[in-house]
Amino acid sequence: MSLSVAEQPQPVPTAPRSLIDRLGALLDERDLALVGDRLRRLDALAAEDLAAVDRAIVALPREGTVAIRGAGHLLDLGGKRLRPLCVALAARCGRGFDDGAHKVATAVELVHSATLLHDDVVDYGDVRRGAATVRAIYGNAASIYAGDWLLIEAMELVRQARVGDTLERLLAVIREMILGESLQLELRGRLVPDRAAYLQIVEGKTASLFAWATYAGGRAGGVGDNEAAALERYGRRLGVAFQIVDDLLDFAGRPEKLGKALHTDLREGKTTYPLLLALERFPGLRPDLEQALAAAEGPDEPLLAEVQRALADSDAISASRRFAESYVKEALTALEAVPPGPAREALETVAAAALARDA
Amino acid sequence: MSLSVAEQPQPVPTAPRSLIDRLGALLDERDLALVGDRLRRLDALAAEDLAAVDRAIVALPREGTVAIRGAGHLLDLGGKRLRPLCVALAARCGRGFDDGAHKVATAVELVHSATLLHDDVVDYGDVRRGAATVRAIYGNAASIYAGDWLLIEAMELVRQARVGDTLERLLAVIREMILGESLQLELRGRLVPDRAAYLQIVEGKTASLFAWATYAGGRAGGVGDNEAAALERYGRRLGVAFQIVDDLLDFAGRPEKLGKALHTDLREGKTTYPLLLALERFPGLRPDLEQALAAAEGPDEPLLAEVQRALADSDAISASRRFAESYVKEALTALEAVPPGPAREALETVAAAALARDA
Repeated sequence: MSLSVAEQPQPVPTAPRSLIDRLGALLDERDLALVGDRLRRLDALAAEDLAAVDRAIVALPREGTVAIRGAGHLLDLGGKRLRPLCVALAARCGRGFDDGAHKVATAVELVHSATLLHDDVVDYGDVRRGAATVRAIYGNAASIYAGDWLLIEAMELVRQARVGDTLERLLAVIREMILGESLQLELRGRLVPDRAAYLQIVEGKTASLFAWATYAGGRAGGVGDNEAAALERYGRRLGVAFQIVDDLLDFAGRPEKLGKALHTDLREGKTTYPLLLALERFPGLRPDLEQALAAAEGPDEPLLAEVQRALADSDAISASRRFAESYVKEALTALEAVPPGPAREALETVAAAALARDA
Repeated sequence: MSLSVAEQPQPVPTAPRSLIDRLGALLDERDLALVGDRLRRLDALAAEDLAAVDRAIVALPREGTVAIRGAGHLLDLGGKRLRPLCVALAARCGRGFDDGAHKVATAVELVHSATLLHDDVVDYGDVRRGAATVRAIYGNAASIYAGDWLLIEAMELVRQARVGDTLERLLAVIREMILGESLQLELRGRLVPDRAAYLQIVEGKTASLFAWATYAGGRAGGVGDNEAAALERYGRRLGVAFQIVDDLLDFAGRPEKLGKALHTDLREGKTTYPLLLALERFPGLRPDLEQALAAAEGPDEPLLAEVQRALADSDAISASRRFAESYVKEALTALEAVPPGPAREALETVAAAALARDA
């Protein structure tokens, strides 16, 4: 998410922003005061790690075929770099952020970017991070190849890092992500039938990569088997919470901060968690919505208003928030197996920030 | 991965065809008589290896999300399995086709299939191997995810095989393939400017994977550094020759054997080698063709006839065939560094067959 488009005249990357800037954007004013101190400590701990990841991303080629230029366009738009942050903090739960952790942290951002490039093709996405998508500028094919290229660069970094079993686990995670995305694709138009299918998709497309980030970061930092497993559990729970909050923002976010319109997921036929709850309460809405999604023009304003009313009447927003909170609590519980210290505290802060984010 | 086909009554593939069937389809009647004996020896040497690869491919999941079903559709259409054959024969230049070689041979076919799934999206391809493409049946997004999934399965197999530096080389090759395809995409509509650019694309999109197949096969068979380098050189030359002959078939093939219409590459704006030669001789044709390619309806019949005339008048077909022959000769020269024996002879036969194929 580039917070200041005006400052970016060209694909030149901006100077690394402070972590407070990055995470501050995730928090609205109420919460910012509460976690301000903790964010400052997190910043002191990991800002240089993230700056090093940014430098590695900036150092990737930007000239060459359309695959390379396309990937560069997305990478230069910035982003929260939340997954590299997870790697860095997990590594700092052990002996610290060394070259292996740096490669792993860079790789996880590249994998994430690759999935965005492919998702935008699948979803016909035109705007991402407040700017035109790669597919809108360079075409679908370029976006596919750009994603393929980043995936390969990521795997090469993880191979070079030679951290335990992280490469084979990354392959398994990417497989899980593809199958999660592909299940979501398949259900589109029909809407996700139930919470089990919803969670299966979210585990695949979002949580698995977070889990890998914290696991691989911990391994790069040399933590033991128990701590690595605890960090992985933390990452998976955090990832689900992150996705549920993301879902909430489709109904309750601020478009100017999100860089995209409200109801984007809804119009694309993605079943978000609040929508699922509203449909459980008002099952009659499901066929209407599925019919509208099957039509070329999609759901119209009266139907969107009806969905919004159903959300309000079913208390779906608060219930979704509580559901996300339960995952954050599980994430924090998992962290108890990790020795206390500034890195563990920072991971706790990240989990709190995930709940509070509004963009 | 269960190798037992009999236990899986489901998406039943055709019985493995003999190598003579497979390669016989590559040869027209004149040549078949000449190489018949050599093909029979090749068959005796590698038929069981290829059958084992087929069993591994059949044993991949066929049920699950649309990514898995889509990949299965393409895999079940068969194919020449030329790249696994290269792996098997290269392995047999050493100590033979063991489990590592089997994994490598299966992986190379999956990588090839993955690129076909992505190419069909990029090229709007509707027909492949005489059947509807995955994108035509399941949609573009499914074809993308199906390709992603096969790529991951392939890398996991190579990782499991643990054969020397084959995984890092595969990553480098896939990167080269993506950039080759992406360069081809970028030049589309403008037509490839010259032979250097043509060769750059062909090295990337076709030859690099053949080179990996023969290198990795050799390594799996335990050959030394010199032999591995020679096998890689052989594979790269074979790959270029293979692509030039493929190009020729766009003008001189038999549609009923190819499973696709003549002039498919031409209509898609792909600059084949014979076309490049004709454009060198008749440069005035280039702007006409580029203009037609830029228009929605593409080149019309009179223009296609003019191209076909230019090909005849510039002797482009024979010159392309001679060019392919020069690569086959270099491939055979490279093989001289490999100890003589049935496997080397079989690789020579493959190179000869590549020249003679008509589908």
